[in-house]
Amino acid sequence: MAYQAAVVGAAGYAGAELLRLLAGHPDLQVTRAVAATHAGATVADVYPALGPAYRGMVLDAWDPSALEGVDVAFLTLPHGESQRVVPDLLGRVGHVVDLGADFRLPAAQYEQWYGTPHTAPQLLERFTFGLPELFRDGLTPARAVAVPGCYPTAAILALAPLVTAGLAAPDGLVVHAASGISGRGRSLSEASLFSEVNETVTPYGLLTHRHTGEIDWALSELAGTPIATLFTPHLVPMTRGLLASCYARPATDGLSTARLLDAYQAAYGDEPFIVVAEDPPTTRATVGSNAAHLTARFDDRTGAILAFAAIDNLGKGAAGQAIQAANRVLGLPETTGLPAVGIVP
Amino acid sequence: MAYQAAVVGAAGYAGAELLRLLAGHPDLQVTRAVAATHAGATVADVYPALGPAYRGMVLDAWDPSALEGVDVAFLTLPHGESQRVVPDLLGRVGHVVDLGADFRLPAAQYEQWYGTPHTAPQLLERFTFGLPELFRDGLTPARAVAVPGCYPTAAILALAPLVTAGLAAPDGLVVHAASGISGRGRSLSEASLFSEVNETVTPYGLLTHRHTGEIDWALSELAGTPIATLFTPHLVPMTRGLLASCYARPATDGLSTARLLDAYQAAYGDEPFIVVAEDPPTTRATVGSNAAHLTARFDDRTGAILAFAAIDNLGKGAAGQAIQAANRVLGLPETTGLPAVGIVP
Amino acid sequence: MAYQAAVVGAAGYAGAELLRLLAGHPDLQVTRAVAATHAGATVADVYPALGPAYRGMVLDAWDPSALEGVDVAFLTLPHGESQRVVPDLLGRVGHVVDLGADFRLPAAQYEQWYGTPHTAPQLLERFTFGLPELFRDGLTPARAVAVPGCYPTAAILALAPLVTAGLAAPDGLVVHAASGISGRGRSLSEASLFSEVNETVTPYGLLTHRHTGEIDWALSELAGTPIATLFTPHLVPMTRGLLASCYARPATDGLSTARLLDAYQAAYGDEPFIVVAEDPPTTRATVGSNAAHLTARFDDRTGAILAFAAIDNLGKGAAGQAIQAANRVLGLPETTGLPAVGIVP
Amino acid sequence: MAYQAAVVGAAGYAGAELLRLLAGHPDLQVTRAVAATHAGATVADVYPALGPAYRGMVLDAWDPSALEGVDVAFLTLPHGESQRVVPDLLGRVGHVVDLGADFRLPAAQYEQWYGTPHTAPQLLERFTFGLPELFRDGLTPARAVAVPGCYPTAAILALAPLVTAGLAAPDGLVVHAASGISGRGRSLSEASLFSEVNETVTPYGLLTHRHTGEIDWALSELAGTPIATLFTPHLVPMTRGLLASCYARPATDGLSTARLLDAYQAAYGDEPFIVVAEDPPTTRATVGSNAAHLTARFDDRTGAILAFAAIDNLGKGAAGQAIQAANRVLGLPETTGLPAVGIVP
Repeated sequence: MAYQAAVVGAAGYAGAELLRLLAGHPDLQVTRAVAATHAGATVADVYPALGPAYRGMVLDAWDPSALEGVDVAFLTLPHGESQRVVPDLLGRVGHVVDLGADFRLPAAQYEQWYGTPHTAPQLLERFTFGLPELFRDGLTPARAVAVPGCYPTAAILALAPLVTAGLAAPDGLVVHAASGISGRGRSLSEASLFSEVNETVTPYGLLTHRHTGEIDWALSELAGTPIATLFTPHLVPMTRGLLASCYARPATDGLSTARLLDAYQAAYGDEPFIVVAEDPPTTRATVGSNAAHLTARFDDRTGAILAFAAIDNLGKGAAGQAIQAANRVLGLPETTGLPAVGIVP
Repeated sequence: MAYQAAVVGAAGYAGAELLRLLAGHPDLQVTRAVAATHAGATVADVYPALGPAYRGMVLDAWDPSALEGVDVAFLTLPHGESQRVVPDLLGRVGHVVDLGADFRLPAAQYEQWYGTPHTAPQLLERFTFGLPELFRDGLTPARAVAVPGCYPTAAILALAPLVTAGLAAPDGLVVHAASGISGRGRSLSEASLFSEVNETVTPYGLLTHRHTGEIDWALSELAGTPIATLFTPHLVPMTRGLLASCYARPATDGLSTARLLDAYQAAYGDEPFIVVAEDPPTTRATVGSNAAHLTARFDDRTGAILAFAAIDNLGKGAAGQAIQAANRVLGLPETTGLPAVGIVP
Repeated sequence: MAYQAAVVGAAGYAGAELLRLLAGHPDLQVTRAVAATHAGATVADVYPALGPAYRGMVLDAWDPSALEGVDVAFLTLPHGESQRVVPDLLGRVGHVVDLGADFRLPAAQYEQWYGTPHTAPQLLERFTFGLPELFRDGLTPARAVAVPGCYPTAAILALAPLVTAGLAAPDGLVVHAASGISGRGRSLSEASLFSEVNETVTPYGLLTHRHTGEIDWALSELAGTPIATLFTPHLVPMTRGLLASCYARPATDGLSTARLLDAYQAAYGDEPFIVVAEDPPTTRATVGSNAAHLTARFDDRTGAILAFAAIDNLGKGAAGQAIQAANRVLGLPETTGLPAVGIVP
Repeated sequence: MAYQAAVVGAAGYAGAELLRLLAGHPDLQVTRAVAATHAGATVADVYPALGPAYRGMVLDAWDPSALEGVDVAFLTLPHGESQRVVPDLLGRVGHVVDLGADFRLPAAQYEQWYGTPHTAPQLLERFTFGLPELFRDGLTPARAVAVPGCYPTAAILALAPLVTAGLAAPDGLVVHAASGISGRGRSLSEASLFSEVNETVTPYGLLTHRHTGEIDWALSELAGTPIATLFTPHLVPMTRGLLASCYARPATDGLSTARLLDAYQAAYGDEPFIVVAEDPPTTRATVGSNAAHLTARFDDRTGAILAFAAIDNLGKGAAGQAIQAANRVLGLPETTGLPAVGIVP
């Protein structure tokens, strides 16, 4: 019998992708979909694409008691909301998998990057960082999951093996990223209008993007040394897809592209969702899937390391990874219900 | 144990979509992938997105004897090629499902629209028109399948219930269609370059597009009266998706939008892949799926009928429908392995 | 010495296009830019692209007295606003050129299509329909100008010569149109978000789109007989460009494509902004310009007429046509400052 | 009276943009358009958008004698072709402005990056690097012009002021760039098909892209010290636009964003086509224009410098800059006929 899942924040894009992926999941069934702004509408009203799998399902307003007994509650809420609702939820549902930013960082770093104190710091230790390939041991049945953001997922996957293997130096790391517009979510802003973002590339969040905190925290944890990256996101005119292009300096002599790729193979060779290739990755290869495609280069001429990771920002960067983590805390095979192939063309 | 499938023409876009969908099909396993121009390369070389499901699979050159014993051979070949290879194939494989145009029309109409005589007319009666919702009875184990084209699928789904119920007049039918660029396939042409088709809408094939023949043949068959539609395709700047916007005149008095929608419900109410809605369909709702979304309107002011159908040109318009038909000739539930939900956003 | 122009509604897309085109106009200089929501910001803040031509120009709040003495005031305001501001403006400025819908229709038709009575009906006779190629005689110095909408401009240009020459029948006209998203303007709505409209085609405004009223009024005026068209707009994923694909029935025997094209040549042969071609038009050819590209077909097989017009919805469909009309009422050559070439690729 | 111009390579995208911009140039008139593959067709056949300005102009096959007496010949040819045709051309036309890569580098560097010896090295000294803002003194009437590539133009504009002012260190420079697909030109390749490049971001040319040679040469010239940058281009799904995002290390203490912007102001404050702003640039702001939009940041936290330049790859990155340089060698004001405002939205 399938586990019961709730999607809280079902009207947003990560919520829609959770609903889509869970529609094909053999062991997890969505029994509740909660949405603040569209409560009362059906799933099909809000996303006609999802109608065939959720005939008649109505989006509920938020009411924690209605989620009592659900096995997994996925939360995709605006920043700050998870802190507010998780205290009411932890005792009622089997597992909480939060796709928001509220429980990813220690309290001090949270305050540093978000500019406000955490309102539920006592719950932070209940959560584990939901990036299975690198933090799998923390994903135990007892833990709630804080799924990392889309940018951090790509950046950490690309850099962690190089930093932890002593190939890339921990200082001077540059993470240059490009994301599809769905990463901004479905809320209304001039900067998300088609005519504003079509046919243009724009950097944003210069120097201060909050995802920097996650990237730094995770790489520091894995490397065992403080790491401060320079992270610069860019918007590109596509709906889905995210590429992290990372630049690093060598931490050792005798580097070569082959050694970098070997480090990736050592780290990810058995991972079902990680593709290590010689060719540069294209984000298209990951769309609709939970895959990450990686490559790396060492440039003899300038002595620089390049590392690339492509993901679907709503897949491995959000809903896919959340389900992967949920599978694990539920004791299911991690790959259950998750495509590794992207939709092409 | 799964049936064995071969995809012939695996390097094209319909071939890629077959590979992607079959990667998630529980009862059909791709054991052979054939590609003329990319023979010798791996599936992952040609489509990195598909690599995770086809690790190490090499694209074969065409050799009918290598397909001996395969349960289903899906053919996605340039126009005219199926006529050449099907005679060698019919005796060797369990079922042939041809996504090309070679076996969709009677010999006379074939020659009328394609301007050249059919080279294997004796095989035409072996084939049945693979549009399950309207020609299901023909899909028997004994028959090969000619999957209809993308434009005909949408146009026929939208118009057939109205024409056969005596609501829309058989003359004066207009089919105005818009398709994503993947409908042109992967072959090289200036007209398919990104910079040529991005940010523009263009009508093409005026008066003479070959898909007209299929639309007319199928509607005439279903209505039992000769029908000649005016079909005008347009290219729009997107990769996937196809919308047929059809205009008709009433065949009876007292029409209303409700009566038209009732006719759709009567025709498609139990169909798992057909969504009949009041809101106008958007092609996005079907991307990656085998769904078709339909609506209709009657305009009291001008006395005209409008009928709309949205599909994914590579899904219900090609690979999805091919698998749906294959499921049926194999005796599997038609929905096996086929998503009805589209990928949004 | 250049005439002075004001752009009222400068922060919207038609306003931006007016500013861009007027930056290259030798005889019209923008001395005032008014914007409700961005008042106080500079033009460069709101549109960095326009900064080089408007260094330091600040967007003003609405104040009719500040426009005193301006030679031309271009208005690009939300529906209903022009009725409110024009009474204050007519005596203060040399000419009013309104890009909105408020002064395009007689009072009765206005109320029919907009659902509310006109609030300044006494001013309607002061306005003339600003489509120079077909209503040039009305564009006298004494008249204010109501520039037609983007859809009507394309539809009327395509159909008028065929209807007035007695080639197309006045009943049964179908106008199927596809527009880029900028036609929705810059106001915030979920339906204008990139991730909602990218990669999809969607019909909207079925049966009741207000532009129907303009198309019907203008064609009726030109043909001298009541005409009611069926107009169905579609959104396609591009920023600019608009294609009207029109379907008509013959009003006479012996039609041919050549006769239809001859009628276009007779109507538009000397027009600097109209391109009549045999090939189907592509909207790209008009982007950034004031051009309209047209073709037509007669289909012997089904007895139908097809007529196509492609324009830039912000060019000939809005700002370009407004300047063309302004040139005329000012006594300048109509082509002054207006490109006829589109930006390709 | 206008100078006479020839466009050699008129069927390509840079050729089309030259034709478009020159259609609005008051002092330069295109009298000859040459195209290898489309010779015999009209300009309107190949680019309907340009038809209104070039009614009846036929594309000629290459014949240097037919260009005798032309004042300026713009060459936009495939790599290697300019070396072949320039020897025949220099004595026949007033000025040669080459948009290709053949005459941008000294012979040794040419061979290093292009892997083959230069075939007309004796002519290299006749050419000057056509980036007016930084190499204006070389643009004398006696010199032929080698217009820099699109990537180098953006990268050099962004980095030169910082390097020459002693703010950015000459080593460790990283140039990360994103370009629209038109940068690949109009030649046929699978990698340029709409369905391949739409909705995806892809790095390419890793470590070895030939434009690196130009960036390095120009920065070295300007700084007076050898500079080797790491240049990594990416394709993004848009037609036009190019963003260079550059990373550098400080060459001095006490850096701040204000100091970096001051250096830009000092270098470009009077330049009509350079916009220095605090906000991050968006490529859209430059489309159709000859503008470059720049900004910079100093990151106290990581001690890194960021520098951004946005251009239209076909404008300031090709045709616009070529005309700017031609204006200068002809003695015209540099801004003649060149828009500084981009087309928005």
